[in-house]
Amino acid sequence: MTTKTNQAEKPYKGSFITLEGPEGAGKTTQAKNLSKQLDAMGIAHIITRDPGGTPLGRQIRRILLNPENPVHPMTELLLYQADRAQHISELIMPALHAGKLVICDRYVDSTIAYQGYGRGIDFKIIDELSLISTGGLKPELTILFDLESSDGLARLHPGGHDRLEREALEFHLKVRQGYLNLAQAEPERWRILDASKPMSVVQSEFRRLLLENLGEKFNLAALAD
Amino acid sequence: MTTKTNQAEKPYKGSFITLEGPEGAGKTTQAKNLSKQLDAMGIAHIITRDPGGTPLGRQIRRILLNPENPVHPMTELLLYQADRAQHISELIMPALHAGKLVICDRYVDSTIAYQGYGRGIDFKIIDELSLISTGGLKPELTILFDLESSDGLARLHPGGHDRLEREALEFHLKVRQGYLNLAQAEPERWRILDASKPMSVVQSEFRRLLLENLGEKFNLAALAD
Repeated sequence: MTTKTNQAEKPYKGSFITLEGPEGAGKTTQAKNLSKQLDAMGIAHIITRDPGGTPLGRQIRRILLNPENPVHPMTELLLYQADRAQHISELIMPALHAGKLVICDRYVDSTIAYQGYGRGIDFKIIDELSLISTGGLKPELTILFDLESSDGLARLHPGGHDRLEREALEFHLKVRQGYLNLAQAEPERWRILDASKPMSVVQSEFRRLLLENLGEKFNLAALAD
Repeated sequence: MTTKTNQAEKPYKGSFITLEGPEGAGKTTQAKNLSKQLDAMGIAHIITRDPGGTPLGRQIRRILLNPENPVHPMTELLLYQADRAQHISELIMPALHAGKLVICDRYVDSTIAYQGYGRGIDFKIIDELSLISTGGLKPELTILFDLESSDGLARLHPGGHDRLEREALEFHLKVRQGYLNLAQAEPERWRILDASKPMSVVQSEFRRLLLENLGEKFNLAALAD
């Protein structure tokens, strides 16, 4: 990555946190549950997701998910980045300037893990595009919901292990390794959470990590209950 | 621009020609008329346009034109580039590999003229993105349908000269100057056509330019008739 966030230089009062990991790791559910608790605690926050965090982003998402469109890998990458530029300018940056806790389900690291490690797109191109689309906005904390790839696939597709499943497993092994490499390269930003544990354990661990890293700034003491 | 096309190194047999210039300069009409004549002459060709040359591109175009979407300038730029990546991989490169004459209504130079010169987006960002989306594909010939900016606007909006019109005029002056700068920087690629002349004169001049530059390769002698 070409940009480093210096806490002291942040042009906003809020905090930008991202959740990463494979499908099936439970991060979306955890984020939703957390949001309810933050609401109850009166903590100003938004929970959003990349891609699809804005009306325009949801239109882009429909293009990406339309089975009649044979989307070229570079087109896909550019559409994700277009979504991200809109998401940041329309939703994330205004919330950060308003001092909110912003929790985003996936961000640039997903692009590196899936399109870079998974599909083999040149990391340099991904980095260049991400810098352009984000204007250099980096999360101050990223929580990796780590899951053995076979566990994640089993949760998503209980049953079959045909050729496509094996290809899918190989792809997910690359993605998982990608995430672990990213976490190792920037340990000060990443926290790794074992998402194979029971949901209640994952939930406690998730809240403990938030409390530990953001508890003072956002008065999160009630998360320990 | 960071890429230079070397005719000898082209990995395809066809020819890639682009038409540039403001709205109202008549390039779309000229391209359509030309296509009919090329059909009659049995010349394998495609006439296409950027953006919107593929089904996916037309879905992107709908997002861009939807008045309910407040599209951020960087989002807009990334969406144009996503459209372009798809257009090249799905339509333009296969046609070039098949040896066809490919005439594209607008291309990277429009992005530089409109988003760069017109809207003030950093040229370096546009160049980086264009290199990524095009994979370095450059036209071997670009015909600029040049028009005094006030002529172009008068053709599009006969009548009023209010504040918005004046702002539009200033914008178009910048775009026109952008095109002229681009043409001056790469005279071997550009030909400038005076699009203020009567349509029949523009048509003759357009065909003369094609004949002069591509006549031998594509057996275009009949264009002189």
